[in-house]
Amino acid sequence: MGSLDNHSVNGFSIPADTAGKIITCKAAVAYSPGQPLIIEDVLVDPPQKLEVRIKILFSSICHTDLSAWKGESEAQRVFPRILGHEASGVVESVGEGVTEMEAGDLVVPIFNGECGDCAYCKSTKTNLCKKFRVNPFKSVMAGDGKCRFSTKDGNPIYHFLNTSTFSEYTVLDSACLVKIDPLAPLKEMTLLSCGVSTGLGAVWNTADVQAGETVAVFGLGAVGLAVVEGARTRGASRIIGVDINAEKCIKGKAIGITDFINPMELDKPIHEKIREMTEGGVHYSFECAGNLDVLREAFLSTSDGWGLTVILGIHPSPRLLPLHPMELFDGRRMVASVFGDFKGKSQLPLFAKQCMAGEVKLDEFITHEMPFSRINDAFQLLVHGKSLRCLLHF
Amino acid sequence: MGSLDNHSVNGFSIPADTAGKIITCKAAVAYSPGQPLIIEDVLVDPPQKLEVRIKILFSSICHTDLSAWKGESEAQRVFPRILGHEASGVVESVGEGVTEMEAGDLVVPIFNGECGDCAYCKSTKTNLCKKFRVNPFKSVMAGDGKCRFSTKDGNPIYHFLNTSTFSEYTVLDSACLVKIDPLAPLKEMTLLSCGVSTGLGAVWNTADVQAGETVAVFGLGAVGLAVVEGARTRGASRIIGVDINAEKCIKGKAIGITDFINPMELDKPIHEKIREMTEGGVHYSFECAGNLDVLREAFLSTSDGWGLTVILGIHPSPRLLPLHPMELFDGRRMVASVFGDFKGKSQLPLFAKQCMAGEVKLDEFITHEMPFSRINDAFQLLVHGKSLRCLLHF
Repeated sequence: MGSLDNHSVNGFSIPADTAGKIITCKAAVAYSPGQPLIIEDVLVDPPQKLEVRIKILFSSICHTDLSAWKGESEAQRVFPRILGHEASGVVESVGEGVTEMEAGDLVVPIFNGECGDCAYCKSTKTNLCKKFRVNPFKSVMAGDGKCRFSTKDGNPIYHFLNTSTFSEYTVLDSACLVKIDPLAPLKEMTLLSCGVSTGLGAVWNTADVQAGETVAVFGLGAVGLAVVEGARTRGASRIIGVDINAEKCIKGKAIGITDFINPMELDKPIHEKIREMTEGGVHYSFECAGNLDVLREAFLSTSDGWGLTVILGIHPSPRLLPLHPMELFDGRRMVASVFGDFKGKSQLPLFAKQCMAGEVKLDEFITHEMPFSRINDAFQLLVHGKSLRCLLHF
Repeated sequence: MGSLDNHSVNGFSIPADTAGKIITCKAAVAYSPGQPLIIEDVLVDPPQKLEVRIKILFSSICHTDLSAWKGESEAQRVFPRILGHEASGVVESVGEGVTEMEAGDLVVPIFNGECGDCAYCKSTKTNLCKKFRVNPFKSVMAGDGKCRFSTKDGNPIYHFLNTSTFSEYTVLDSACLVKIDPLAPLKEMTLLSCGVSTGLGAVWNTADVQAGETVAVFGLGAVGLAVVEGARTRGASRIIGVDINAEKCIKGKAIGITDFINPMELDKPIHEKIREMTEGGVHYSFECAGNLDVLREAFLSTSDGWGLTVILGIHPSPRLLPLHPMELFDGRRMVASVFGDFKGKSQLPLFAKQCMAGEVKLDEFITHEMPFSRINDAFQLLVHGKSLRCLLHF
């Protein structure tokens, strides 16, 4: 790769002659569940075969980071670990065999990778790659089962969701990195790395909402609002937002909800209200709250015959689906959607262009910005429901 | 309609000048849960507006009849009642407004009707008519909420599943009656009235199985074997039959299973065995046993990424779906299918022709035949798993 002194993209310079060498940089390391991340120097190995090392330029925080940070499930309690999966950056160097990108390329990490070669990647029916699909329990690189991060005294630091973006430099499998247009606005592209793709894709790909159809969105966080934006772009005739936080109504309306329901103010079950509003139920409901009781309401809010509920929320509870099998005989269906059913490497470049062309509006999603050094403050904003996306500047 | 003395179709004569009059005929009346049906004279009123009175020529018995007969759910305990829904017959007379059929037409009753006018009938996404969809709790005619059957001393006898075919004559809404080719073999057409359409349709319409794909069928009763026949006609490369009754293997192989699994002989969960046999799981599984533990095995037997489980069995248990919501994130889906997603009146005539042309083979399904008077013996054959379909001759 040689010297890259003069290489700058979008005004971001990338370092010279670090290729092949260990890089020492700042990272936010999680040492134990729920405790503040420690920002410290870590060592980042060069990328191995089919891997890429990137310089992170922006990262934001998503509820999946919170879940792993809190160690909500025992199998996730792998420490020390570098969390983070929604980001954008620039390629610093590539490992053996990587030909599709090179130092200086702008990239977006994807936690749900696409190798392009397996039976799953070759199928049009799924975006779950056999090798690089999302796996919250994976904590090492696929190639050799080892970590590319280590502390200054040589102990390994574990990876997270194929990405680990809370670090100035990180190493990813090239299957988990999407090269995007060098002119793309990087701050907004960061959102494509997880939340916005998940929500919009659920509308476009999973449900395939058509103009004039009706939608209910349960939970108006970043993913739920991305569902709203997806429904707006598809021309849905009714977009009903549901959230127990009354403040969500404002942002929801700015993006495109036509109606807002605060369940705390209802004297009847949500699904009854929605059925009254929509002559029997919406065509599609989207569960973005990760709550099983909400999931049941979302299911019952759809019309019999053709209603489809898309599950986007993460359900850590051990409780099973609150549905009786006979309830499926009314023609309602329920599916889950991972990363909005986007095949990341194949489809995100076009999605990025659609965003650049203004077909999709992303400006409402970034509610806060702060330097990487304040990551613990950014965590608290999300914990307390104050932010949609807080963009960390590296 | 005038005199029909000379009218005979397929060798079946229909009566003269009964149109507009009450007919007295034999019916098998259920008076209490699980007790033998009483064959006695009943009075059958003429058809009212948009209704049709038919002479039943053949009827068979399905597990849904058994369920209502046993009164498995309290709401189903409506007596006296004339059960039966899988049949074929000939039109005796039609009520006001019925123009699509006339006396002498060969017909097949459908418990899941099609009015043709409602939003559901006009949608391509569902076969659940707003007014005449299957409803095991309905026991009177839709038009006036009354019964067309009565005892000789004038007490009403209730209807069942829009059809009530255990009677020499019955009255149905024209939405629940399909006119078929006058040359169609009526014995086999009887099977289209419920079980065979349900199973084949689940493969053709609900799952839309393609040539070369793989299928597992849980429960090899009539519906399960119809699934096998559907998979065979579609060119499935592997059709795995699962049943705890080892005798089902013979009939299954005659129809088209390529493999048989008796779970009683396995030393591992069924889904593990099926995943081993199929490089990770079948494309589609069909649950025809009405058992929740079987349903979970069926779900897990499909491949992640694209596996689809179709529920056909009736689940009277109050237990909820034995699935965790996160299990849906592996890309497996589950849907229920009513009447094989056939729109009965629109699609059964073509299906009947496909059967007549030999594309679908129905000869393995009728295992017993006996006169209507022996209906209680026929019930026992099904209760004890001795018959697939026992055809009652009227």
